[in-house]
Amino acid sequence: MAGAVAGSGIVVRNIERADRDVIAGLGACGVATVHEAQGRKGLMASYMRPIFAGARLAASAVTISAPPGDNWMVHVAIEQLKDGDILVLAPTSPCEDGYFGDLLATSMRARGGNGLIIDAGVRDVRDLTEMNFPVWSKAVFAQGTVKETLGSVNVPIVCAGALVNPGDVIVADDDGVCVVAREEAAAVLEKARAREAAEEDKRKRLAAGELGLDIYDMRQRLADKGLKYV
Amino acid sequence: MAGAVAGSGIVVRNIERADRDVIAGLGACGVATVHEAQGRKGLMASYMRPIFAGARLAASAVTISAPPGDNWMVHVAIEQLKDGDILVLAPTSPCEDGYFGDLLATSMRARGGNGLIIDAGVRDVRDLTEMNFPVWSKAVFAQGTVKETLGSVNVPIVCAGALVNPGDVIVADDDGVCVVAREEAAAVLEKARAREAAEEDKRKRLAAGELGLDIYDMRQRLADKGLKYV
Amino acid sequence: MAGAVAGSGIVVRNIERADRDVIAGLGACGVATVHEAQGRKGLMASYMRPIFAGARLAASAVTISAPPGDNWMVHVAIEQLKDGDILVLAPTSPCEDGYFGDLLATSMRARGGNGLIIDAGVRDVRDLTEMNFPVWSKAVFAQGTVKETLGSVNVPIVCAGALVNPGDVIVADDDGVCVVAREEAAAVLEKARAREAAEEDKRKRLAAGELGLDIYDMRQRLADKGLKYV
Amino acid sequence: MAGAVAGSGIVVRNIERADRDVIAGLGACGVATVHEAQGRKGLMASYMRPIFAGARLAASAVTISAPPGDNWMVHVAIEQLKDGDILVLAPTSPCEDGYFGDLLATSMRARGGNGLIIDAGVRDVRDLTEMNFPVWSKAVFAQGTVKETLGSVNVPIVCAGALVNPGDVIVADDDGVCVVAREEAAAVLEKARAREAAEEDKRKRLAAGELGLDIYDMRQRLADKGLKYV
Amino acid sequence: MAGAVAGSGIVVRNIERADRDVIAGLGACGVATVHEAQGRKGLMASYMRPIFAGARLAASAVTISAPPGDNWMVHVAIEQLKDGDILVLAPTSPCEDGYFGDLLATSMRARGGNGLIIDAGVRDVRDLTEMNFPVWSKAVFAQGTVKETLGSVNVPIVCAGALVNPGDVIVADDDGVCVVAREEAAAVLEKARAREAAEEDKRKRLAAGELGLDIYDMRQRLADKGLKYV
Amino acid sequence: MAGAVAGSGIVVRNIERADRDVIAGLGACGVATVHEAQGRKGLMASYMRPIFAGARLAASAVTISAPPGDNWMVHVAIEQLKDGDILVLAPTSPCEDGYFGDLLATSMRARGGNGLIIDAGVRDVRDLTEMNFPVWSKAVFAQGTVKETLGSVNVPIVCAGALVNPGDVIVADDDGVCVVAREEAAAVLEKARAREAAEEDKRKRLAAGELGLDIYDMRQRLADKGLKYV
Repeated sequence: MAGAVAGSGIVVRNIERADRDVIAGLGACGVATVHEAQGRKGLMASYMRPIFAGARLAASAVTISAPPGDNWMVHVAIEQLKDGDILVLAPTSPCEDGYFGDLLATSMRARGGNGLIIDAGVRDVRDLTEMNFPVWSKAVFAQGTVKETLGSVNVPIVCAGALVNPGDVIVADDDGVCVVAREEAAAVLEKARAREAAEEDKRKRLAAGELGLDIYDMRQRLADKGLKYV
Repeated sequence: MAGAVAGSGIVVRNIERADRDVIAGLGACGVATVHEAQGRKGLMASYMRPIFAGARLAASAVTISAPPGDNWMVHVAIEQLKDGDILVLAPTSPCEDGYFGDLLATSMRARGGNGLIIDAGVRDVRDLTEMNFPVWSKAVFAQGTVKETLGSVNVPIVCAGALVNPGDVIVADDDGVCVVAREEAAAVLEKARAREAAEEDKRKRLAAGELGLDIYDMRQRLADKGLKYV
Repeated sequence: MAGAVAGSGIVVRNIERADRDVIAGLGACGVATVHEAQGRKGLMASYMRPIFAGARLAASAVTISAPPGDNWMVHVAIEQLKDGDILVLAPTSPCEDGYFGDLLATSMRARGGNGLIIDAGVRDVRDLTEMNFPVWSKAVFAQGTVKETLGSVNVPIVCAGALVNPGDVIVADDDGVCVVAREEAAAVLEKARAREAAEEDKRKRLAAGELGLDIYDMRQRLADKGLKYV
Repeated sequence: MAGAVAGSGIVVRNIERADRDVIAGLGACGVATVHEAQGRKGLMASYMRPIFAGARLAASAVTISAPPGDNWMVHVAIEQLKDGDILVLAPTSPCEDGYFGDLLATSMRARGGNGLIIDAGVRDVRDLTEMNFPVWSKAVFAQGTVKETLGSVNVPIVCAGALVNPGDVIVADDDGVCVVAREEAAAVLEKARAREAAEEDKRKRLAAGELGLDIYDMRQRLADKGLKYV
Repeated sequence: MAGAVAGSGIVVRNIERADRDVIAGLGACGVATVHEAQGRKGLMASYMRPIFAGARLAASAVTISAPPGDNWMVHVAIEQLKDGDILVLAPTSPCEDGYFGDLLATSMRARGGNGLIIDAGVRDVRDLTEMNFPVWSKAVFAQGTVKETLGSVNVPIVCAGALVNPGDVIVADDDGVCVVAREEAAAVLEKARAREAAEEDKRKRLAAGELGLDIYDMRQRLADKGLKYV
Repeated sequence: MAGAVAGSGIVVRNIERADRDVIAGLGACGVATVHEAQGRKGLMASYMRPIFAGARLAASAVTISAPPGDNWMVHVAIEQLKDGDILVLAPTSPCEDGYFGDLLATSMRARGGNGLIIDAGVRDVRDLTEMNFPVWSKAVFAQGTVKETLGSVNVPIVCAGALVNPGDVIVADDDGVCVVAREEAAAVLEKARAREAAEEDKRKRLAAGELGLDIYDMRQRLADKGLKYV
């Protein structure tokens, strides 16, 4: 489910972006780690799936609020892209239409755009895969769209259940899509890296056959709660 | 789909609320009119349905971000209610459990609470119906919940695809649930009333057999677009 | 799921309709009986539900193929209604938007229209219920629509999985919606009435405690198939 | 989701049933209370909805495992009914067809049968409502079925996610459907009644304005977990 | 959603097919282009997915209307295949059963059949993938079927929301499945090729960094509609 | 849909397992063949999909009944694994949270565990794929879980619509997941092998162009049922 937060017909030109190194660092950590590190918030719904396995992405969001079945605002948004940005599109009511295909991906690439997060459909997925252009979408659907009604660019949107402000950092991989608020990005990265370090130690102990029951000291607490072995 | 916007373990005590007359006025206009009047934003997903037909509500939101299957924060939130408030609950991941039943409704009533919007399940619907306690939910489900994990009260949440800030005005009826931002409530009410007045005139003309094609002057524009009568 | 069969931008003015008495007769038989009588074809998907219990309808279809989120063609179609007709609308891609509310119902009533079958959303359901204006829809959703893109009127459509030609007979009740081809309507009515007569006799025997196993002579066939009582 | 547990082509004639007074007692407690009282197990999926509001039922289950789109076994099962029984049907693969209508309900009534739980479709719901014959189903769908393939009667089935053994007690109301194992029925009733008594006291205190936070002594535990009021 | 259009128990032997070169030409254009070229009609629902990535198909349809959970008609249909045909199966009510596996694919191959479009389930997908036998289906499901009830072959069907007449051209790839009416196939091919040529030019200009806003001359129209840059 | 069959807070230590050679033999036959061989029972819902194509598994089940959003019991269950076991997890109410990732897989591997069947979500799928650790799940979802509430280990569960007892044999591949009761495993294997042998002969005849209509002697039976060739 997706929804528009602000009204229609507005394009915000100048948005702030997070630091490039922070964005790259978040991408290296991956969705599951980043999501944990920021207190389990900002995750999009599980129906948002990559069009090809192994896709990974971390980028700054240019947001689009678009009418159902109308991709006019995608053209408007592409002009607002800066190098390393991606587009994040939420329709104003549920829609699976194919707003985006290989021509728009070609245009985005030429303007520095790196990928697409869309709470609707995408098409030309064979071409997009050959271009190695990553897309996370609700559906793959060849259904075309029109260019008749205004939406907005770079306004707050709700995309697949997550609030996205323009300039927020999007981290996406095989596990899904996570939104990190721009102003929290550096702090989240620090926590994510700490988490990774801690996991590395646990991975070794678990691989050696030690049990989580012991590593995390769970036995007494389980007994206190009343767990019975029979 | 619902999601938490902020972190966990926080209760915000003092929130601002919209003017009571404005809230009542929005309720009198109803969801469809209010949604149009504010530029078609703020509508929750269509799966949010009332537990009984004819339920109507306009109220100020006390928000809850709750873990899946854990209704502890409902108890915390009830203490924060003021007269005329309602609770709006979004789980941090998709869940249909029955967080709420007649005992909690009894408690809410005693503290001035008027209804519930929940992107999850509700139970005891026969009792709630007899109490005339209105609920809009994703599911009716008797599945019980635990009280083990913290959530937050009066933080921004995404509920059924719509962003809800504490103190926002909720308008709900048989058509669904719409969120009006607190600071826009008075302006939206003005537009909604203007809309109602305009509709009344159109209703009379349409009832007299005049066509929308003529009232809205559509014939030329349809011809320009290429509509052909055969 | 719904789809357009023909192209866009066409309004067919003169369509043939079935005989009024035949239509009324089919309505008296109801969906389940009519569906059986015509060989179990023409049934719309089970997600098509009436907005109020007890609604019943039999009427001649004026069809609409409409873009997602665009209800312009409803206005065009209303001019084509004749007394006793209904509108049957299929969007060209899946959509839940509220194409229709009480103003359009008022207009339809004034032009002889009796109801709506829509593979999308409807709103103002409280008003429609008070008007006793029957609607079967995929969703109740306040989301508004635009008037920007052409569709077609009185072309073949696929609505909720069923092919509908303009002038086909629609029978709808609490069990759902069934389409009877115009040219088969009289023959289907005859079979439906025969079926009703036969059922009346069976109902009496069953009410008296006789078993279907005996009335339909099933015991030997069950034994031949290998049914074992243990 | 539903599935067959045992093989096909078997009818078990003699099954044990729970005590009538126990069954009635469980029905008086209702689904939510019974489900809690037995440790939150045995609840069917939330998509199982009554065909009319206010329906209530407690009865002993005669189970049917039926092929998709084939209602032959319903006739076989009706002969196995004893006074106060109901039928519980699970198709061997997901199906929404209308296995059951008013003729079969008439036959069930004549043989002492009281209602139907079906993880598939039902039809003739207007007639069933007029007969006050309660049904909980996954769908209302007029689609007819054939009588060609064997299933089984009174074997264990999985219906809407819950295991049902023949003779288990089914409790159903507006909140859904719950299965109580026959051998546990008396013990569950005792717990359910204790629960009801305890709730009565809490209801009074809550109605008087006392908070759950105090009645259940939650404040210290919330503070220990780290809840912060700001 | 799928449905039968015609009655049961009929096999139409002689159907017309489109020209082989036209079919091949449509396949080379792909689903998205063909769908656009024919005015955005004839697309099946987005839930129709290929069992392996990269599958492509263009072929003449032999249609099957089959009961739920009964694959008898597949055997009947295979005899009607001519070289280069595919099977298109719609169940008469929603069903996910695995009607088709590697044995039937082996049989189809031996008789000139090239693939399967099925608004239900398929199984043995590992074997089918190794055989490079393309299938687009609603589900992968091992659930077996029976051979007890007649359906029809080479009658009009509604498959995943699209009307399919026997002999229609099916184009399928990673984007989904599109139906082209036999009699329109040559004209659609011509338009699809024109579209491809036009796209090639645009692709070059977009790759060079030109904006769609300028190529399609959108700036003035956007301003007229009221788009504001802030 | 999934549900708990037994109560909470119990760990059964000693369970019986099927013979290793029988388990391996069932795995070699694959899901579709095993499901047919045991009379088409025990299949999980079609939404249970492998996280990577080509995964195959046959193993003895250690079962987990877990609260929604709480993976504590996974740690408890890992201690109960014996070489060649897998975990089968059903939440007590519908949930998509990511109960399991690469750390837990590392731990399972170290203790002899081979894979996971989960009627909920999984995360770290890139890592799991690199580890060649097979998982069949309802969802891929990065959403984390807590460790607060007890569930049970090695109790009967309903997982994706199928009853699973601890020690039952799980067979899983690209076609889905099938449960074979431990005590029936040897007999099912025998039937599955007989089925495979019979299929081999049929495959050759079909590949040579013989029709199923003739191999299975269907023509007379089709004619008797009334099939007409036109």
